[in-house]
Amino acid sequence: MTTPIDFYFDFSSPYGYFASTRIEEIAAKHGRSVVWRPILLGAVFKLTGQQPLPTIPLKGSYAKHDLARSARLFGVPFKLPTKFPIAGQAPSRAYYWLADRDSVHGRTLAQALYRAYFADDRDISSPEVTANVAAKLGVNREELLQALNDPAVKERLKNEVDAAIERGVFGSPYVVVDGEPFWGSDRLDQVDRWLATKGW
Amino acid sequence: MTTPIDFYFDFSSPYGYFASTRIEEIAAKHGRSVVWRPILLGAVFKLTGQQPLPTIPLKGSYAKHDLARSARLFGVPFKLPTKFPIAGQAPSRAYYWLADRDSVHGRTLAQALYRAYFADDRDISSPEVTANVAAKLGVNREELLQALNDPAVKERLKNEVDAAIERGVFGSPYVVVDGEPFWGSDRLDQVDRWLATKGW
Repeated sequence: MTTPIDFYFDFSSPYGYFASTRIEEIAAKHGRSVVWRPILLGAVFKLTGQQPLPTIPLKGSYAKHDLARSARLFGVPFKLPTKFPIAGQAPSRAYYWLADRDSVHGRTLAQALYRAYFADDRDISSPEVTANVAAKLGVNREELLQALNDPAVKERLKNEVDAAIERGVFGSPYVVVDGEPFWGSDRLDQVDRWLATKGW
Repeated sequence: MTTPIDFYFDFSSPYGYFASTRIEEIAAKHGRSVVWRPILLGAVFKLTGQQPLPTIPLKGSYAKHDLARSARLFGVPFKLPTKFPIAGQAPSRAYYWLADRDSVHGRTLAQALYRAYFADDRDISSPEVTANVAAKLGVNREELLQALNDPAVKERLKNEVDAAIERGVFGSPYVVVDGEPFWGSDRLDQVDRWLATKGW
């Protein structure tokens, strides 16, 4: 089977960031490719009534502790950003705009944006910051800034979010392998096993 | 160190049930004991604003799918109960009443109650059903039914729930190893590693 794996994530999701550092390696091991699909959890949460992790009593403090501990365990550079969570419109639009022209370039940008936010504490919700990160990868800065305000690019993201909700995506990361959904960075070992065994 | 591991769970929590089938083995591997501490997530959710899993749009359907898939992967007998979720007062009170007199007997009862609910679809929220499960283990049925209405036993459970919340417990299963908290059955491998390495 050569269907790509769908990797849904929100740019403001630290567990999505953790998954982003492993998903390509897992897929490659099984000769599979990955389609990166940033979404906006804010839109999803309106539907499901969930709250952003840091705002939930008890669970929010635990999450901070678990994130730092998980990052140490996985050996992933991580610092809880000063501004957290953030709105993911700018980085998500930048991603789709670029990925639609060159998917590998798009993925490289997504990885760079995630690192900028969760390793270097840069506020990628700002179009300027997102454009700066992209410019480092050779993207035309002005062209990208214009794209972020392009109604067609906005619509592109909105359609992705709607399609994700339609498909049942309610969190980040959320991975779909041959129709089989897996939620959470702690399900990646199961994703790996599913790819190896074709299911159980 | 010989401090016991604290294992918090709700009798209505399927992921707590999964964890209950592994926690003793993990602890024993490291020469550690486990204190089983049933709590009432309903009381916790009033504080944190969370909702029972099955009632959350999208996430609820995913959870059903994930539970069946996880059970197959772990080789644990599981059937989503007809009545789900349930109030955990009867089984929790029965547990503390028995465990305070004999901790091993208490644990055996907790395991039997979990199996009755999640493997055999018996509604353990009913004092009668809980008493029947306990009677099979040699517990005096009438004595137990009286204990379930004893204000001191009710108070015992209430105090446990309050102490758990005080400690930051917000979900099930929730395991504390030497002050280090781990939430979720998918953190048991980390619990194992933490016990082996004394932390990272």
